[in-house]
Amino acid sequence: MSTLVQSESTRITPVIILVRPQMGENIGTAARAMLNCGLTEMRLVAPRDGWPNERAFPTASGADCVLERASVFENATDAVSDLHRVFATTARTRDIAKPVLTPRDAAPQMMNAIGDGQKVGILFGAERSGLDNDEVALADTILTFPLNPDFMSLNLAQAILLVAYEWRMFTEEAAEIAAANSAAMRSGRGQELATKEDLEGLFIHLEEDLEEAGFFVVEEKRGRMVRNIRAAFQRARMTDQEVRTWRGIIKALSGIRRRKNPPQL
Amino acid sequence: MSTLVQSESTRITPVIILVRPQMGENIGTAARAMLNCGLTEMRLVAPRDGWPNERAFPTASGADCVLERASVFENATDAVSDLHRVFATTARTRDIAKPVLTPRDAAPQMMNAIGDGQKVGILFGAERSGLDNDEVALADTILTFPLNPDFMSLNLAQAILLVAYEWRMFTEEAAEIAAANSAAMRSGRGQELATKEDLEGLFIHLEEDLEEAGFFVVEEKRGRMVRNIRAAFQRARMTDQEVRTWRGIIKALSGIRRRKNPPQL
Repeated sequence: MSTLVQSESTRITPVIILVRPQMGENIGTAARAMLNCGLTEMRLVAPRDGWPNERAFPTASGADCVLERASVFENATDAVSDLHRVFATTARTRDIAKPVLTPRDAAPQMMNAIGDGQKVGILFGAERSGLDNDEVALADTILTFPLNPDFMSLNLAQAILLVAYEWRMFTEEAAEIAAANSAAMRSGRGQELATKEDLEGLFIHLEEDLEEAGFFVVEEKRGRMVRNIRAAFQRARMTDQEVRTWRGIIKALSGIRRRKNPPQL
Repeated sequence: MSTLVQSESTRITPVIILVRPQMGENIGTAARAMLNCGLTEMRLVAPRDGWPNERAFPTASGADCVLERASVFENATDAVSDLHRVFATTARTRDIAKPVLTPRDAAPQMMNAIGDGQKVGILFGAERSGLDNDEVALADTILTFPLNPDFMSLNLAQAILLVAYEWRMFTEEAAEIAAANSAAMRSGRGQELATKEDLEGLFIHLEEDLEEAGFFVVEEKRGRMVRNIRAAFQRARMTDQEVRTWRGIIKALSGIRRRKNPPQL
């Protein structure tokens, strides 16, 4: 069964790792933000006031199951040791040579990694100090929030909420597309998000046919036009079934032209 | 000048309306959530502890400008009297015959309304009780959050954050597309989100050409295939320039010239 069509309770989700959290109340609101989006696995690295902490429960507003299952680690290295793919949230841009993504762009990567059987975790720093450089260095990818550059002030629970929300929005949409395709097709295919390779195949197919059709009249504009066309497809976040449909569309349309004007070779 | 390319400080944004908010602290965190996403106009309907309220400022974490400019109304009817388009956030589905949207789907509608010179507002209810039925009745459209059905527990600031975040993500993306098109084209066109009419013209153009190509082999599958193709385009949220590019692509591939506008019914 595809990971896309698992039920709510059995779905594998990213692990949320709070590094050196201070106030118990904030651990509670973090749990609440997580469970709103269906995330249940919390890890705590060296919580200042120890763990368990009574003060976390009232602010969790009923997300007790997240707190009760939280595991505690001495340091961030131990907390990520069993993970395959680690993201680190930072407010500032740092001089670290790692890819930087928004939560929205990271969600498909998290889902693809989990779909490949990998364990995914996201590091969040302490309330004021954030993650230190050694902790950021544990991550493959940096997450930043594309918010108001004149006022960026997310608290811990809000930062978690936005990352978890994008995860949920993306996986729910993917599950809906998969369910729609699955109900219609019953073919066992077409239920996965298209891979980069699928998309690249589609782009090259389209660009070759456009070349043949004489679409790129002005050679200097070609690069920009290709980028714009690719960008629209990328925003559409298609399944592999949809990519196949689009290849069929291109083939069908080009077939009309070629019948009328056979390509001169 | 298009509303899409206004600078941060002059951009027109939706008004956030807190109906009967109770704790001043929550008004502060609401202001903080707003300003993170570039929203600055707050209205307060009958705040329980009066206004101004000293307790709001510490939790605003510096978003004082939002609190200082907040205006106070006796009731929700007065607070929306100058608005053209009103959204109401609710956690429960109600027996009200109004369109229901997610914050993500509502953002383009808000932007289009503002682009048409309309004033847009979003109603948020009190911490525990939410909006009453008469207050919901003031809205054109209901906003609901597509979160964990087994645990939906957003506090006021988090609900505002998600709505404001989707507004920001959509308008920033639109501004980026507009800036990219603008820089490349300098034509004064192509900077607006495509209208439903533009998209309908594109769909009909594509479907006519696919019909001619014999793409719809199995007539019973035609409706579903058309819906799937349209859905991918809709997810891509294209500008009118991009729609024109796609019409050019279809024309180039098929070699058939079609009329620009769909038939009027």
